[in-house]
Amino acid sequence: DVGEFGLIDRLARLVSRDDRDPLRPAPEGPLGIGDDAALWMPALDRPEVLTTDALVEGVHFKLSTTGWRDLGWKALAENVSDVAAMGARPRRAFVTIGVPRETRVSDLEELYRGLRDLADRFDVAIAGGDTVSSPLVFLSVTVVGEVPNGALRRGAGRPGDLLAVTGALGASAGGLELLEAGLMAAGTPDEQALITAHRRPGPRVDEAMQIAAAGVACGLDLSDGLLGDSGKLAYASGIAAVLEWEAIPVVPALERRFGDRARKMALAGGEDYELLVAGRPEAINRAGQGLAAAGLIGLSVVGRLIDGLAGRVTVVDRFGEEIATEPGSWDHFAVAGSG
Amino acid sequence: DVGEFGLIDRLARLVSRDDRDPLRPAPEGPLGIGDDAALWMPALDRPEVLTTDALVEGVHFKLSTTGWRDLGWKALAENVSDVAAMGARPRRAFVTIGVPRETRVSDLEELYRGLRDLADRFDVAIAGGDTVSSPLVFLSVTVVGEVPNGALRRGAGRPGDLLAVTGALGASAGGLELLEAGLMAAGTPDEQALITAHRRPGPRVDEAMQIAAAGVACGLDLSDGLLGDSGKLAYASGIAAVLEWEAIPVVPALERRFGDRARKMALAGGEDYELLVAGRPEAINRAGQGLAAAGLIGLSVVGRLIDGLAGRVTVVDRFGEEIATEPGSWDHFAVAGSG
Repeated sequence: DVGEFGLIDRLARLVSRDDRDPLRPAPEGPLGIGDDAALWMPALDRPEVLTTDALVEGVHFKLSTTGWRDLGWKALAENVSDVAAMGARPRRAFVTIGVPRETRVSDLEELYRGLRDLADRFDVAIAGGDTVSSPLVFLSVTVVGEVPNGALRRGAGRPGDLLAVTGALGASAGGLELLEAGLMAAGTPDEQALITAHRRPGPRVDEAMQIAAAGVACGLDLSDGLLGDSGKLAYASGIAAVLEWEAIPVVPALERRFGDRARKMALAGGEDYELLVAGRPEAINRAGQGLAAAGLIGLSVVGRLIDGLAGRVTVVDRFGEEIATEPGSWDHFAVAGSG
Repeated sequence: DVGEFGLIDRLARLVSRDDRDPLRPAPEGPLGIGDDAALWMPALDRPEVLTTDALVEGVHFKLSTTGWRDLGWKALAENVSDVAAMGARPRRAFVTIGVPRETRVSDLEELYRGLRDLADRFDVAIAGGDTVSSPLVFLSVTVVGEVPNGALRRGAGRPGDLLAVTGALGASAGGLELLEAGLMAAGTPDEQALITAHRRPGPRVDEAMQIAAAGVACGLDLSDGLLGDSGKLAYASGIAAVLEWEAIPVVPALERRFGDRARKMALAGGEDYELLVAGRPEAINRAGQGLAAAGLIGLSVVGRLIDGLAGRVTVVDRFGEEIATEPGSWDHFAVAGSG
C-alpha cells in the first residue's frame, strides 16, 4: 500500500544516480534531482535529441502477462531505441509513473529495478521524472541523447539506397503470440528465447553509432514491423520501397518454432527494436564492415528505395515478382505506414 | 469520436511549428517532428534544464470544473514555471496525451489551443510528444530550457539571505475555492479574476531571467504554497526559514472577497506559480531594481533564512513573535515541505 507518496519518490531516487555525469557536470552542480528541473551542460557542437513515449495499462501492456520489472525495462528500452534511431547516444532518462495508491511497494521496486537494468546496460542516467497517483498504471518516459556523428533521419532516403536491418526479425511477435496463448516462463529454450526477446528488447545503441559514423544518414527503429516501418521511412523520404521476401533475416528460434509462418512474422511483426537504415551501397557496406570490426550486431540488406508513390512498399520474390498473397493485409500496413 | 488516432496526431502537428527555432536550426534540419525524436543544436556554453510533470483526470483536475483549453494552458504553464524557477528560459515543450477513443475532436482542439496559447505567449516551441489511447485523460508534459545567466537552485540558500516573492499570492487558492463552491463563469469581477488566476496561471519567465541576472542563485516556483515551498527551499539548503506574516503580499481581489481569511490563503494556498527566491540583501535589491526597470512584476521581501533545523519554517508577527494559532496545520505543512 503506497499511502505515502513520498515513499515512491524515495524509490525513484534509488535509481537516480546524480553522479552519473562525471565528464561534464553542470557548473552549478550535479543533475539537480530534487530541484525544479534537471540541469546539465550540453556537449559542445553536438545536436541533442529528445523522445517521449507513454505506455498505458490495458492498452499497451497487461500486468497479467508483463511483470513489473520487464515493464520498467521495456518502457525505457523503447525510448532508448528511438534515440539510437536518430544516431544519438542516449544520456539521460526522465520517468513519469502513474500508479494507484494501493500498489504494492515490492511491485514498484521491481519496476525501478527494470528501469535500472536497462539504464545501467546502456549507461543512461535516470535524471528525474514525476510520480503521480492514477487509477490505472501508466509510464511516460523521456530520453535525451547526443548525436556524436551524423543524425539518422527518416526523410533522408534517396532512390537507389539500399535498405538494411540490424540483427534478425520476428522474435518479439513470436514471443507475444506465445504469451497470449498462455505460455509463460515454461516452454522450450526456443520459446523462452522468443518470450525474452518480447519482454526485454535490446536497443541497438552502439550499432546506430557505428552506422551513422559510416556515413549512413537515414534510419529508424523497428517498432511497428519491417513492412509498416519501411512505409514510414519511404513516406518521409517521399519515395517508395521494395522489400525482398527471401532476404528478410528471420530469427532461427522463430523458424524452428513457427515454421512457414516465421517469415511473415518477421515481415509484419512489431517491437523488434532493430534498426532499419537506408544508404548508398558503399555506405551500407562500410557500416557493415564497421559493425563486424567492432564485434557488434551485423546488417542484412533487405531491399531498396525506388522512385514511386510516397510510402508504397512492395514485397518481391527472388525473381522480382510482387508477392501479393494477402493484398488486404499489405494495404493495411501501407496505410499505417503513411500515417 | 476519435476512432482514428491519426487524427489526433494531425491535431498535435497543428500546434507544432517546426520553424520556431530560427536562431539555431540543427544542421540536419528542423526540429524533427515526425521523426523518432526531436533534434536541435544546444546553445553554446549554456546549461540546459529539463522538467516533466503529469496531470491525471480525477486526481489533478476534473473536466467538470476545468475546461479543455484551460487544461492545456495549465499543464504547460506548470512545466514552464518549473523551468523558469531554475533560472532557465523555456525553449521546447513535448506533450504526451492519453485520451479515451470516444473523446470529441472539438475537445481535443480546445486542449491544443490552450497549449498553443501558453506556448505562443512564452515563445516555446511545441516540438513533439506522443498521443495514446487511455481509459482516462492524462497529460505528461516535458519542457527543456536554457540557462542564460546563473541557475536558481533550491539548495543555494544561506543563513542571512532574504526571502522574496514575485507578485502577490493567494489568487489561485481563492479561485479554486470559488470553483469548488460551484461558481463558474458568473460572479463579480473580483471573483472572475481569482478564477482566471487559478485556471490560467502566468509563469514568471522574464522575471526569473532578471532575478538570476542580478546574482540571485536560490529559488523555486510556488506550486504548493509559500509555507510549504519555503520549507522545501530551506530543507534543500540545510537551514531554516522565517516568514513575516504581515509582509506576505496578498492579492487585493482576494482580500476584498475573502477578508480576514485572505492572508492565510496567501500563506498556505498553492498553484500561484510566483517565484520564491533567496539571496543576499544587495542581490535582492538589485533584482528588484532590474525588474522595475524592465517593467516586470516586482519582488516583495517576505522573510529570511536562518541557521536552524533543516526545513523548519516559522511564521512571525511584526514583533518577531511566532504565530502558532494552528500548530497542527503548520506542522503538517512543515512535514510536507521536507518530503
